[in-house]
Amino acid sequence: MYGYQGQVLRVNLTKGVCTVEALDEAMAKKFVGGRGLGTKMFANEVSPTVDALSEENKLFIVTGPLTGTPTPTGGRYMVITKSPLTGTIASSNSGGYWGPELKFAGYDIIVLEGKSNKPVYIMIEDDKVEIRDAAHIWGKVVSETTEILKKEIPEKSRVMTIGPAGEKLSKMAAIMNDKDRAAGRSGVGAVMGSKNLKAITVRGTKKVEVADAEALKQVVKDCNAKIRENGVTGQGLPTYGTAVLVNIINENGVFPVNNFQSSHFDRAEELSGETLTEQYLVRKDPCYRCPIACGRYCKVDDIEGGGPEYETIWAFGGDCGVSDMGAVIKANYWCNELGIDTITAGSTIAAAMELYEKGYIKDSELDGVSLKFGDNDAVVEWTKRMGLREGFGNKMADGSYRLAESYGVPEFSMTVKKQELPAYDPRGIQGQGLQYATSNRGGCHVRGYMISPEILGLPEKLDRFTLEGKAGWVKIFQDLTAFIDASGLCLFTSFAMGAGDYASMINNVIGTDWSAEDVLLAGERIWNIERLFNLAAGIDASQDTLPKRLLEDPIEAGPSEGNVTRLSELLPEYYELRGWGADGIPTQARKDILGL
Amino acid sequence: MYGYQGQVLRVNLTKGVCTVEALDEAMAKKFVGGRGLGTKMFANEVSPTVDALSEENKLFIVTGPLTGTPTPTGGRYMVITKSPLTGTIASSNSGGYWGPELKFAGYDIIVLEGKSNKPVYIMIEDDKVEIRDAAHIWGKVVSETTEILKKEIPEKSRVMTIGPAGEKLSKMAAIMNDKDRAAGRSGVGAVMGSKNLKAITVRGTKKVEVADAEALKQVVKDCNAKIRENGVTGQGLPTYGTAVLVNIINENGVFPVNNFQSSHFDRAEELSGETLTEQYLVRKDPCYRCPIACGRYCKVDDIEGGGPEYETIWAFGGDCGVSDMGAVIKANYWCNELGIDTITAGSTIAAAMELYEKGYIKDSELDGVSLKFGDNDAVVEWTKRMGLREGFGNKMADGSYRLAESYGVPEFSMTVKKQELPAYDPRGIQGQGLQYATSNRGGCHVRGYMISPEILGLPEKLDRFTLEGKAGWVKIFQDLTAFIDASGLCLFTSFAMGAGDYASMINNVIGTDWSAEDVLLAGERIWNIERLFNLAAGIDASQDTLPKRLLEDPIEAGPSEGNVTRLSELLPEYYELRGWGADGIPTQARKDILGL
Repeated sequence: MYGYQGQVLRVNLTKGVCTVEALDEAMAKKFVGGRGLGTKMFANEVSPTVDALSEENKLFIVTGPLTGTPTPTGGRYMVITKSPLTGTIASSNSGGYWGPELKFAGYDIIVLEGKSNKPVYIMIEDDKVEIRDAAHIWGKVVSETTEILKKEIPEKSRVMTIGPAGEKLSKMAAIMNDKDRAAGRSGVGAVMGSKNLKAITVRGTKKVEVADAEALKQVVKDCNAKIRENGVTGQGLPTYGTAVLVNIINENGVFPVNNFQSSHFDRAEELSGETLTEQYLVRKDPCYRCPIACGRYCKVDDIEGGGPEYETIWAFGGDCGVSDMGAVIKANYWCNELGIDTITAGSTIAAAMELYEKGYIKDSELDGVSLKFGDNDAVVEWTKRMGLREGFGNKMADGSYRLAESYGVPEFSMTVKKQELPAYDPRGIQGQGLQYATSNRGGCHVRGYMISPEILGLPEKLDRFTLEGKAGWVKIFQDLTAFIDASGLCLFTSFAMGAGDYASMINNVIGTDWSAEDVLLAGERIWNIERLFNLAAGIDASQDTLPKRLLEDPIEAGPSEGNVTRLSELLPEYYELRGWGADGIPTQARKDILGL
Repeated sequence: MYGYQGQVLRVNLTKGVCTVEALDEAMAKKFVGGRGLGTKMFANEVSPTVDALSEENKLFIVTGPLTGTPTPTGGRYMVITKSPLTGTIASSNSGGYWGPELKFAGYDIIVLEGKSNKPVYIMIEDDKVEIRDAAHIWGKVVSETTEILKKEIPEKSRVMTIGPAGEKLSKMAAIMNDKDRAAGRSGVGAVMGSKNLKAITVRGTKKVEVADAEALKQVVKDCNAKIRENGVTGQGLPTYGTAVLVNIINENGVFPVNNFQSSHFDRAEELSGETLTEQYLVRKDPCYRCPIACGRYCKVDDIEGGGPEYETIWAFGGDCGVSDMGAVIKANYWCNELGIDTITAGSTIAAAMELYEKGYIKDSELDGVSLKFGDNDAVVEWTKRMGLREGFGNKMADGSYRLAESYGVPEFSMTVKKQELPAYDPRGIQGQGLQYATSNRGGCHVRGYMISPEILGLPEKLDRFTLEGKAGWVKIFQDLTAFIDASGLCLFTSFAMGAGDYASMINNVIGTDWSAEDVLLAGERIWNIERLFNLAAGIDASQDTLPKRLLEDPIEAGPSEGNVTRLSELLPEYYELRGWGADGIPTQARKDILGL
């Protein structure tokens, strides 16, 4: 078998039993791997109506066939489970070095099921797999957990772990690997915590065999050249990291400020990639085999660590009215240490700030800590309290939707399907609005990054205020992204590469002869199995929507002034293009085409 | 005090006493720091005729005023001592993260003197300094030493250590930091070993104050932009690492093959930066605050680690007739683990191969291991044996000069002042030949990188075969390089930046108002104190020469065919430009100008 290692490691935590199963090669190729294969296998095994934090939910850790190969950025893995935050299928993606190491140990997938009766971690060293006691690391932050484990596991092992937030079942808990890489969104860390599983360490010494190594070499060379020559992947991201977006997005008037109350930040320069690079950057911190190297490692005062990413800078910065990069770096640091998602964490503080300033949250609840927009220290302090469920932080720890709902005003939560929206105001980017509303895991920018054509002009520049053609673009972006997430590559490659490039890579790795169209079809298949899971979980077309503010209140000032998201005009066309009924349900005819 | 921390940590290993002294600010500013200040202080304290491996020699670890500041690449430190390999002043430079950490701990300089009566290491955590027993790490390789120490020193400490080669006083022993960064040349690791000092760990939490933070911010921004926009620092080095040079140097017919017997390698493509990137690169591995990020981290089979650099690829590759990148990566790995200099190690194997093929070394000496040009496995095996002083490796462990001399044919050693020449045949690059011959630490490419103007065309393209103006260029390159090495920056910045840029940075950091001319004058001052030390050590103008082969035997084929190094035509002009007598001794007049 090429590309795949052919083995699934199943760990039943209730029984304390580890077994190795053969990978179903036909199913693997049909659903590619990662997000596709993981979702298919998960849906085969777990009821869509399962309680996400119950023993019956499972957690799939899934690599792609390109993970651990010489393809550019070939180092990612996905976490598939039912999300405790959204109730949808969750598939959170992470980079770093843990994913390839799992392949090198000989496994494509780990299936975690049941629940241990005490805290444990799993130690993998090639064929050797042990479930070990984790009493000594339970409660520890991510860096300390990693350091302690490194002393008792094989040299060169990679560590994936949850922080205290995952243990405490926070619905914004992430799964962290290599200290500061995160499978961040949808609360997947809480599922791991609910199983009393603290960490998985892995060390592998095997190779990933590919179908045609010589041909692959040339394809990789060509793809690397495209990445180098592209303005975003060859210049913007390498130079400034994802923070390069701060000025670009703000200049377009779609940089949400104060919980989306406005969309242009007059102090954005202080949060820019330029500021980060000149004043706080210690080093670039690239993932496995990445020619882009957008990862950053920054320092302020005695705090240092990976990040911050653009979305993080926005969430703790503009969205909380804060322009102090030092405060952002500190909040980001605590997210990584406590294991929480930065977008949901920052946005939840922003929502709490609006609830406070509008009189819903009272001073008496706050133990003396400020909850005013623009308070640098408050942002850092609430991040810690959320991650630790301390005081009012306990109420924030399950995200902005549940917080706002508890005050009877869920409309203050800027979420889709209860998951916080990222750093782009869709009122000034119509395609992005449709993509937000239809994302299969709720509020998300990496399920179809319409910022690429509508703002950055890649692969071509679209008018961001118009509707024409946008539904079709969203479908293509969603499908291609699903394929990339299934393959094991990083989405950022798509700034420079197209479906044909992914086909060339996958063909030479797994021995297929797919066309660009086949790649998009495989992506569409994945998109539809996610949709079908969500529908069966009770999440129907009525939830393909956006917060009221974005649909009804025009942006008040700046370069996107006067716009709302015209979602209702786009949705019917989108459903039709997807071959779904007006009810948003895939038709049998389309399912037949997709082989579902 | 700005830029400097104002403290010198003196450790007397004989007495086991650590003291902190105030930095002499006037002397610091006159000699800048790093290579300059270190050499001045060393020369004040140690006799030039000291036996390098005796208790009376000292080892100075010296940062620059820009080390630990926001300046691009501001993370380097220098090791100053008398070299056991060359008998000259040694000043070996290293990057990574150890240097800035020393500044953060509050010290500009560590002076190591005397000799411990048992193996020890030094633990530094801000004001706390301890000399600790090192029995448990003596004999261990670099990565294992680092891992063991990390369990017993403060979290986030940086580790500098010698490998087994330094303990065994190999004259090619390096001092390693951050596992795979090396103060590599001139055998400085043996001096550390001779003091029974295995390692120095450091953790610091202080800041480096600068004279004008706001102005510095703009200067750093401008310098970063220059680095980004330059073809070498913005494209070539980031994309391919220093290995980008393999094809360029080979196409010019100055890539030495088989111990400089020829200078064009028909299999160079297999050793190219392109091959390294597409087939072996795991990730880029940048130093502190480096926008270039030329560092590589590569893997072959079960061997992985930092590097290889261009010089290393050449030394174990072309110079040994080897074109297997896997073998180069393995040899490089063992150099890092055992703590030896890759240039001297590879060149010594190359010299041994020629000695073997010409009948001087006999099979009976080799314990069955091949010593033929082009043998991949032999290159890896001899590297290990050299580093461990095993079998015939013991005879190779002090470098090619002593090896060849022991057979009565020192002319087979491609060295200047007993230090191995790097990866450029000076017969096809006349300025580089003069620079090699006059380098103050023997065979070296980073004392004045004439490859920049003569091959790469930076800052302008010179005809590499002509002599006109070359002596002047060499002087400028040597002086500017001395300043850069004193400042704490990486030499690679000079592809994109000039003396004026360095003046701007240093002025805003330490509060001076130096011009570009002042920068070059400071560099010349440093060059001359090194020269004066060497003269007092008995190394006079007669040693400003090159191996006979390069002076007398024309290159036989390829793009540089027919050339020899015309050193005798260049030297008198060089001495005159330097204000030295025909005997190569600085005149009193020039010393007065330089304030010496």
